[in-house]
Amino acid sequence: MNAEILCIGTELLHGDIANTNAVFLSKELAKIGIDVHYHSVVGDNPTRIKESYDIALNRADVIISTGGLGPTQDDITKEIVAEYFNLPMIYDEDSYNSLISKYSKFSEEMPESNLRQTYFPEGSEIIYNPVGTANGCILKRQDRNGKERIVILLPGPPFENQPMIKNSIIPYLSKFSNSVVLGGKVIVFNLGESKAEEMSIDLVKNQSNPTIGTYASKGQVDFRITAKGSSKEKCLNLIEPVKKELLNRFKDNAIYLSADETLEESLCNMLIENNISISTAESCTGGLLASRLINYSGISKIFKEGFITYSNESKMKILKVKESTLSKFGAVSKETALEMAKGLKEKTNSDIAISITGIAGPSGSTYDKPVGLVYACIIYKENIFNIKMNRYGDRQNVREGAVNKVLTDLRNILLTNKLL
Amino acid sequence: MNAEILCIGTELLHGDIANTNAVFLSKELAKIGIDVHYHSVVGDNPTRIKESYDIALNRADVIISTGGLGPTQDDITKEIVAEYFNLPMIYDEDSYNSLISKYSKFSEEMPESNLRQTYFPEGSEIIYNPVGTANGCILKRQDRNGKERIVILLPGPPFENQPMIKNSIIPYLSKFSNSVVLGGKVIVFNLGESKAEEMSIDLVKNQSNPTIGTYASKGQVDFRITAKGSSKEKCLNLIEPVKKELLNRFKDNAIYLSADETLEESLCNMLIENNISISTAESCTGGLLASRLINYSGISKIFKEGFITYSNESKMKILKVKESTLSKFGAVSKETALEMAKGLKEKTNSDIAISITGIAGPSGSTYDKPVGLVYACIIYKENIFNIKMNRYGDRQNVREGAVNKVLTDLRNILLTNKLL
Repeated sequence: MNAEILCIGTELLHGDIANTNAVFLSKELAKIGIDVHYHSVVGDNPTRIKESYDIALNRADVIISTGGLGPTQDDITKEIVAEYFNLPMIYDEDSYNSLISKYSKFSEEMPESNLRQTYFPEGSEIIYNPVGTANGCILKRQDRNGKERIVILLPGPPFENQPMIKNSIIPYLSKFSNSVVLGGKVIVFNLGESKAEEMSIDLVKNQSNPTIGTYASKGQVDFRITAKGSSKEKCLNLIEPVKKELLNRFKDNAIYLSADETLEESLCNMLIENNISISTAESCTGGLLASRLINYSGISKIFKEGFITYSNESKMKILKVKESTLSKFGAVSKETALEMAKGLKEKTNSDIAISITGIAGPSGSTYDKPVGLVYACIIYKENIFNIKMNRYGDRQNVREGAVNKVLTDLRNILLTNKLL
Repeated sequence: MNAEILCIGTELLHGDIANTNAVFLSKELAKIGIDVHYHSVVGDNPTRIKESYDIALNRADVIISTGGLGPTQDDITKEIVAEYFNLPMIYDEDSYNSLISKYSKFSEEMPESNLRQTYFPEGSEIIYNPVGTANGCILKRQDRNGKERIVILLPGPPFENQPMIKNSIIPYLSKFSNSVVLGGKVIVFNLGESKAEEMSIDLVKNQSNPTIGTYASKGQVDFRITAKGSSKEKCLNLIEPVKKELLNRFKDNAIYLSADETLEESLCNMLIENNISISTAESCTGGLLASRLINYSGISKIFKEGFITYSNESKMKILKVKESTLSKFGAVSKETALEMAKGLKEKTNSDIAISITGIAGPSGSTYDKPVGLVYACIIYKENIFNIKMNRYGDRQNVREGAVNKVLTDLRNILLTNKLL
């Protein structure tokens, strides 16, 4: 079974936002063994939407569209699909009731235009939207040549369609797929893409199940290992030897994460399970590190305090960094990072104290301190780990890259030292 | 003149990366008045690539593709285009020389496979790649019906194709466009999408130049105003009355930003120009607010200190929030937000002190305090502004939505009070 993802919205064609719906859907479909053959994006134009459906319906088994289910005049996806298949629009009582109950929760009167959200092409299976007012639907129809096609209509906003995809669409489509796909990734740091490829090309080339895909981003190279099999266990058995071999080749520069797991989830789980408290002191990353940790629900058990000390004054005042250290070595130095972490440890009495200071750019560089130079220090109990790195790209990339490196190093320290 | 962007790469269909090439190209084309009608994504599959070209060539004036120009066996875009138009592949001496000179810079021997990068479909205008080894090309051909089409082939990596787009493609295509397109956006907060449309439907419907497009995201509705004219000034004159009317209708709930400007850029410019210092104290947003501000290069002039006080203990210890306030009203309350901001103001002596505390979810809600309830407080000089909001979506959405609201409110406070 193969799929096409059709995203409807002029904002995508203007480049206002990236097509994250296609990313999310592609990942979820891959997990249940459905191959995505095309992504298409079209604006809020009736003729072009209709033509895009026509193309999709004649080349894909499943067409999942996002967008155009809102209450406004340019939301026309359902109407166009109904017209395409020559179906009347039918009123759905349940959608009406859920609309009314949502508006009563907002303590707002429902505008007349929302009533459009209670009509669907005849024969639709309604997909409940737990977040917003736009329910989706599934239609089973035939294409021009009488081939069976599944047409799925979802709302555009990711925070609305993602729970619908997870809870309704994937379980529905799983019935049509008899294989399981499972993936994981080995993330390699501190090596360029071509070097990383050189060290693994024999592995990558000779694999068919699992496959290994590589891609480089923000200072790291990811090796995606994807296995297809009749059960989860069979997939895991296929992945295991490849994972081991890659980790063995890249040693301390690599970590393994299961497909859905983020670096911070993996780390935060470890901290919470072992009741290890943590505090942060950030200069160039300015809260990005703390923010990544705090996006983990449940972090309150172990996150103690975070300080954003961007100026020299705040480094001295809050973290007791010595003026002489700043003037002798500069704010971006191993010495300053160390004093920041020491001051933080003393102030918060956390098990782990982390500091970051660097040159995020585009200005602020000197001859011997280029943009992208970042120092960090991790103190875990009595052990001190000094980190120096060079990150590439624009300001946001340097900052995110620095946080990724620090999170990875901390995870490695905890793992290789068996939590000390 | 209209365009289709065709991105070639299996990694996009796997959801490994978002289609940022389409975002960048769309923005650049919009600036020179070329309407993008479609984005398409297809994998490294010869049949499907050829079919995608066929569809694109028969519905768009300009087809810009990215990807498939590398040295490896699955890089086949040039060969497929040559086959489609029945053209031989022609050797390009300049491309060979630039390849040799690039490899000598890397101090590496050029692999044989790179020679494929010196051949192009006959009649191509070669586009020099200043970064990587894959030059691009432009072909002028006719479609099935004899209509003139422009076909542009670019390499896939953004850091390679972006300089080519800026330096070669946009100047080339500008010759075919005699209009300028300029845009801006009115961002409306605190109103649902349908309510916002109800208040503006007459405007949106009756506009043709500028056009008004709406879209909703993370607790806000954007009205994109786009004007087309023979000069920048003419566009601005077209935008001005629509902008004024929208701002007038939504009053304090709306702000205007020019197309490329972000909320934090606009705000940080204002703070730096007027030398207004700022400090932050964050609970649920955990550094996200500070991080947004610090992503603005030059912020060091006015950003004093940031504190992440996620636990009750840290709120008391660092910000002197009273234990009685926390026990009587809770950590998520107007009273706690106020004491956080007061404590912050006293501690840092900044002109502006901002606090945020809320329930980001998914756990932590109670009957009268649902997930998404967030309190904030802005103290600017002696003036106190209490903010209460309800944000929707998952944990990350609630947190980002809260930061957006606080940044907007602060910008409005500064603007409407003429910086006090």
